[in-house]
Amino acid sequence: MNYEAMIEARTKEVNEKILSYLPKEEGYQKTVIEAMNYSFRVGGKRLRPFLMQEIYTMCGGTKKIVEPFMAALEMIHTYSLVHDDLPEMDDDELRRGMPTTHKKYGQAMGVLAGDGLLNYAMETAMRAFDLCSQQDNENIIKALQVLFNKSGIYGMIGGQTLDVEAEKTNHELELGELLFIDENKTAALLEAALMCGAILAGADEKVVDQFEKVGSLVGTAFQIQDDILDITSTTQVLGKPVGSDERNHKKTYVTYYGLEEAKKDQERFSLEAISMLDSYGTEATLTLTPESEEAKQIVIALIRRLVSRKM
Amino acid sequence: MNYEAMIEARTKEVNEKILSYLPKEEGYQKTVIEAMNYSFRVGGKRLRPFLMQEIYTMCGGTKKIVEPFMAALEMIHTYSLVHDDLPEMDDDELRRGMPTTHKKYGQAMGVLAGDGLLNYAMETAMRAFDLCSQQDNENIIKALQVLFNKSGIYGMIGGQTLDVEAEKTNHELELGELLFIDENKTAALLEAALMCGAILAGADEKVVDQFEKVGSLVGTAFQIQDDILDITSTTQVLGKPVGSDERNHKKTYVTYYGLEEAKKDQERFSLEAISMLDSYGTEATLTLTPESEEAKQIVIALIRRLVSRKM
Repeated sequence: MNYEAMIEARTKEVNEKILSYLPKEEGYQKTVIEAMNYSFRVGGKRLRPFLMQEIYTMCGGTKKIVEPFMAALEMIHTYSLVHDDLPEMDDDELRRGMPTTHKKYGQAMGVLAGDGLLNYAMETAMRAFDLCSQQDNENIIKALQVLFNKSGIYGMIGGQTLDVEAEKTNHELELGELLFIDENKTAALLEAALMCGAILAGADEKVVDQFEKVGSLVGTAFQIQDDILDITSTTQVLGKPVGSDERNHKKTYVTYYGLEEAKKDQERFSLEAISMLDSYGTEATLTLTPESEEAKQIVIALIRRLVSRKM
Repeated sequence: MNYEAMIEARTKEVNEKILSYLPKEEGYQKTVIEAMNYSFRVGGKRLRPFLMQEIYTMCGGTKKIVEPFMAALEMIHTYSLVHDDLPEMDDDELRRGMPTTHKKYGQAMGVLAGDGLLNYAMETAMRAFDLCSQQDNENIIKALQVLFNKSGIYGMIGGQTLDVEAEKTNHELELGELLFIDENKTAALLEAALMCGAILAGADEKVVDQFEKVGSLVGTAFQIQDDILDITSTTQVLGKPVGSDERNHKKTYVTYYGLEEAKKDQERFSLEAISMLDSYGTEATLTLTPESEEAKQIVIALIRRLVSRKM
């Protein structure tokens, strides 16, 4: 099978699905909705909702209840970028080659659009309750709890905090602090993607825990790749300024371990994640449907692509 | 009965209850948690959780499931103040006589503490699922949907958007726009307080709709009072700078209708709200327990206090 082509095709599908959950740009509050939707549309890889969808299918899910969660997760990811780009945070003017939200709509609207996206993520995820029979309620509740645990102070915001604080106070990160940031700022939302996909499909706790580990490995690999690209890529290719870590004297995985070691670790983490995914469904107790098997291969292909740094 | 004394005593109880839901100040992300908790503790009236609790009791609720919702609503209220005080928004340095969050912890932490509070509000409200039998799940889901609808772009954030936009562009508000702001920026969270209290107690849709109307009346009265106090009070009494509406050439209910008319309307809206509350439980089909009747009288006393502007 040509999984590369399937990833392209399914990314487009995922993109269409999640765009359909955006609020209408109307009413007295139109400006904030335009700013929210602009920020959301600028994104492109849709990695998190893509992974959530494929893991859901891989674990045997066949309903629509995963869709509002896919959209909600991408909204959370988007709001974090909008607030991260604000002048008092990273002060970035470009994202994927486009003006950042506060550059286009003003700083106040940057704050409100971020707030609006986080709040609307909750409203959106809860639409899953309207798409299901009552027997799914328990899984939706569990998935909501995981999603907002991973996006909050014990997940993404926790990681952001230490990252920003170290930057503002010129504090040199110790390795433990650096790993905390990578685990939380980046990996937490990937963990949420995989875990929510599995939970919504009704996977048991042991399986969900394994996907949390896979998410952690992929997230850390992804963050290392980001650190590597900040050194080796160009503004044109990346769609955002490069070399910012060095300019800001920021400690990263690369500055701790060196470029070669970082590359090796990134590959090693990715391969471990792949191996864990590959073992799913190989026990005698579980036979995967053709759809589940296909989803599994697609997820693996996506992570391989990550290793070869094509994303 | 001395309801004034009971309001004091119960406000203290409410305060203790909601404070118990704050996250522990520990871990690598300690700073953001300190900033969140500082902002939360600076608040004092606890009007919204107080109303939610009393309406819950008034509608026959006797469990603890309302508590996480009380804390969540106050977190949402608090985050909106933290972000509202930011330099790119209202740029306020004092709130209730204390430095605003970004003044104390820096601007980046102001953004993150607000995000953290909104996200943690969701995590907190969901703790209600752990406090109940499955038969309450439906009500908790409904209450979650109302809470985050009223706090988002179709509620509070919607009102904020137009308010901020008009201020930044020196746009003179038309009356319809002004009422939209008062209804959403201020009233929406009070509506959420009353509606969630009723929903969690199992009230039917008609009753919940009536409480939405009561919330709208009380919220509008409360906002008009705010506009009046901005003219007639002092910085010392209010704990924040006065006269800011006039300095900013801001159109308010008072500038549209004049001080006397505004005072009259505020009283009229409050009395209508009281009359609606008073009629609750007077139909032949419903007999209030002593606890419910007491809660009803406390809510009415609180709103009377609002009319006489003692809050």
